[in-house]
Amino acid sequence: MRIYDVIDDKRNKKALSKDQIDFWIKGVTDGSVADYQSAALLMAIAINGMTDEETYYLTTAMAESGDALDLSAYGDRTVDKHSSGGVGDSTSFIVIPVMAALGRICAKMSGRGLGHTGGTLDKLEAIEGVTTSLSEEKFYAQLNSAGLVIAGQTRDVCPADKILYALRDVTATVESIPLIAASIMSKKLAAGAKNIVLDVKCGKGAFMHDLKSAEKLAQLMVETGKRAGRSVSALITDMDQPLSDYIGNSLEVEGAVEVLKGKTDCPLYKVAEALCVRLLNYEGAEKDVLNAVRSGAALDKFREMLIAQGAKEDVLEKPLCRANCKIEIYSDKGGYVQSVDAMKAARTVLALGGGRNRKEDSILPHVGLKFNVRRGDRIEEDGLVATMYFDKYEDVAYAKDVLDAVKISDKKVSAKNPVLKIIK
Amino acid sequence: MRIYDVIDDKRNKKALSKDQIDFWIKGVTDGSVADYQSAALLMAIAINGMTDEETYYLTTAMAESGDALDLSAYGDRTVDKHSSGGVGDSTSFIVIPVMAALGRICAKMSGRGLGHTGGTLDKLEAIEGVTTSLSEEKFYAQLNSAGLVIAGQTRDVCPADKILYALRDVTATVESIPLIAASIMSKKLAAGAKNIVLDVKCGKGAFMHDLKSAEKLAQLMVETGKRAGRSVSALITDMDQPLSDYIGNSLEVEGAVEVLKGKTDCPLYKVAEALCVRLLNYEGAEKDVLNAVRSGAALDKFREMLIAQGAKEDVLEKPLCRANCKIEIYSDKGGYVQSVDAMKAARTVLALGGGRNRKEDSILPHVGLKFNVRRGDRIEEDGLVATMYFDKYEDVAYAKDVLDAVKISDKKVSAKNPVLKIIK
Repeated sequence: MRIYDVIDDKRNKKALSKDQIDFWIKGVTDGSVADYQSAALLMAIAINGMTDEETYYLTTAMAESGDALDLSAYGDRTVDKHSSGGVGDSTSFIVIPVMAALGRICAKMSGRGLGHTGGTLDKLEAIEGVTTSLSEEKFYAQLNSAGLVIAGQTRDVCPADKILYALRDVTATVESIPLIAASIMSKKLAAGAKNIVLDVKCGKGAFMHDLKSAEKLAQLMVETGKRAGRSVSALITDMDQPLSDYIGNSLEVEGAVEVLKGKTDCPLYKVAEALCVRLLNYEGAEKDVLNAVRSGAALDKFREMLIAQGAKEDVLEKPLCRANCKIEIYSDKGGYVQSVDAMKAARTVLALGGGRNRKEDSILPHVGLKFNVRRGDRIEEDGLVATMYFDKYEDVAYAKDVLDAVKISDKKVSAKNPVLKIIK
Repeated sequence: MRIYDVIDDKRNKKALSKDQIDFWIKGVTDGSVADYQSAALLMAIAINGMTDEETYYLTTAMAESGDALDLSAYGDRTVDKHSSGGVGDSTSFIVIPVMAALGRICAKMSGRGLGHTGGTLDKLEAIEGVTTSLSEEKFYAQLNSAGLVIAGQTRDVCPADKILYALRDVTATVESIPLIAASIMSKKLAAGAKNIVLDVKCGKGAFMHDLKSAEKLAQLMVETGKRAGRSVSALITDMDQPLSDYIGNSLEVEGAVEVLKGKTDCPLYKVAEALCVRLLNYEGAEKDVLNAVRSGAALDKFREMLIAQGAKEDVLEKPLCRANCKIEIYSDKGGYVQSVDAMKAARTVLALGGGRNRKEDSILPHVGLKFNVRRGDRIEEDGLVATMYFDKYEDVAYAKDVLDAVKISDKKVSAKNPVLKIIK
């Protein structure tokens, strides 16, 4: 077999065979296929597409290109979740503790933030003492004792995906539904859980701007995971406005802790609950999820995990956000909140130093925003819109951008259900 | 400007601007655009195409990426020809001497053979003493004194084309009409001649297998050259069977010399004449071309060139082919020759050592074939089909392949006009 013919076939709109895709991914991993050949093939795929079958072959080939977690000892109790990246999305810190409180095994391998969306590892490490770099031994030990762990990759997971993702990033081939699906699902397959729930974000603050593309991606990922023998479902959730009122690394953990402490009347809980229900997948699961929160069991599990990963005993008894400065931002008019622009809010946090423009950038863990209003809320003139947490005094100027992100008018509007669609 | 956006635009089927194409080609030349980015862009072009305008921008950008011949001192008398690569195609050795005999200035920069088609430089160097590596000084001096020169590139002509061609070769993006047109025409523009004729081969032994694609390519090249202010026309000529009876390096020169010595009743002369007529572009040009041959003026010009490039005075008075062995191959049945398969014949010569599979291969200059019959000829049982010239005794086994290339049956067929179409 020659990679030339594989490229040529895809150029000519042919479906690639399992052997051809395996040959490619093996060549990517061992370096025998050159970057420029993969770049040409990725472009041919981005333009000419892939069948569901090809996507499945690509996903499994990438999943098998490196190390995988072996969770077989835990049987069917293993669960995992993935979010396609949103603003103010801290559901992991609710879903994982709740599932652990309900006896599930949660070994979550996460990543760092890039661009306008935060990364789970950055958020966790914003908490004093917490590390997400665990040895393999420590990783499995914590999983055995506590039933939950959120950490970086312990070994070389999906190296082919890493190489291809870096190439896609510089060759305008990121936006391709089969390639996105294969990239996400290969990592989920390698992470070993039997039960997987996907949260595909849709809207202004997400990579998928319209419901149709989000649905297509979600469908394809669910289908791919099922072919690989996993139990998979997906939610499509709204990302026109931030999922939680808290945006920024330590602030988002604070928002999740607030929910775990009983504040369940918010979109963040609604989405977290729906994700848990999909993972539990039985009649009446909602009640068990709510109980896990109300009883404090989920909060205890979260605390147990944080302490196991380096936090102090009283970690959840003190405020997590320790920014140098804060300013309260008030409205200059009264009315109804039409929208809080997720993208504008995220860009402000990025500008404050809370995110990365390049992989090698360092971040300021405590800067961010806490909104006091959401779509549908009534606000008075001089009402509190948000609190901005920042590090350098001159950044106070960004307060104007925060105000700009909130659209207020006389028109009464209703809140939106953040769960747009469920795909089983 | 970012190359990412250029790639993204072409991926999304947009026409690229002159600035975008200049930016790309400049980046290819100075190395600031990575190979994998060019590979992705080439694939997007191969699939989504290019407008005639984009092809023109690409052609001029590549032509300007390196050194160009300055023939302005010769005014409008400069002529050049290009063949898209055929089997037994030695028209250059007729067209260039004829044009020089008619007072035109012919500075032809040629290449070496690769795969099944021979290269003009290899053929010339098959003649004892002849070199095609001329210094720039020697190149211009010969042009001034003799009016004709056929040599390799004296300087760095179209470096961007070289880089992109090498990439296309390994990324399945060779077959793209705009990319082929830009690659050929950029070199023709850089070669400096005012009058250009293109010979686009079409058929089993050519890169273009069907008349429609050949026409499209020819039209696009003519159009591109005209936009750049040159006088350009094209022939589409048949490559189902070899153009001349001689295939192999020194043998093809021998075939051309035979024509220059007066054997004008053959397809090789017909095509050469049509090419000259397009370059002369006046009423009654055929007669002048025939006179240049009949008078011996063209032969004299060819001899003058060979001697200037290192051959002995009596070079054309002795056989040029000096193979170690030869064998005459006779037919095992009588009938009419239906076809001589150009591709099969070329592959046999390649197998005998007369061509290259890789750029770094060396060739055997004297091996090859001389066919005694063409399509339409009557042949008796035991009639002479061809003579095979070879180097190693064991290669005598290839005689069978030569016989296989000639199809004989009882059906009477007529010869084909080798000039299929003229595009002005």
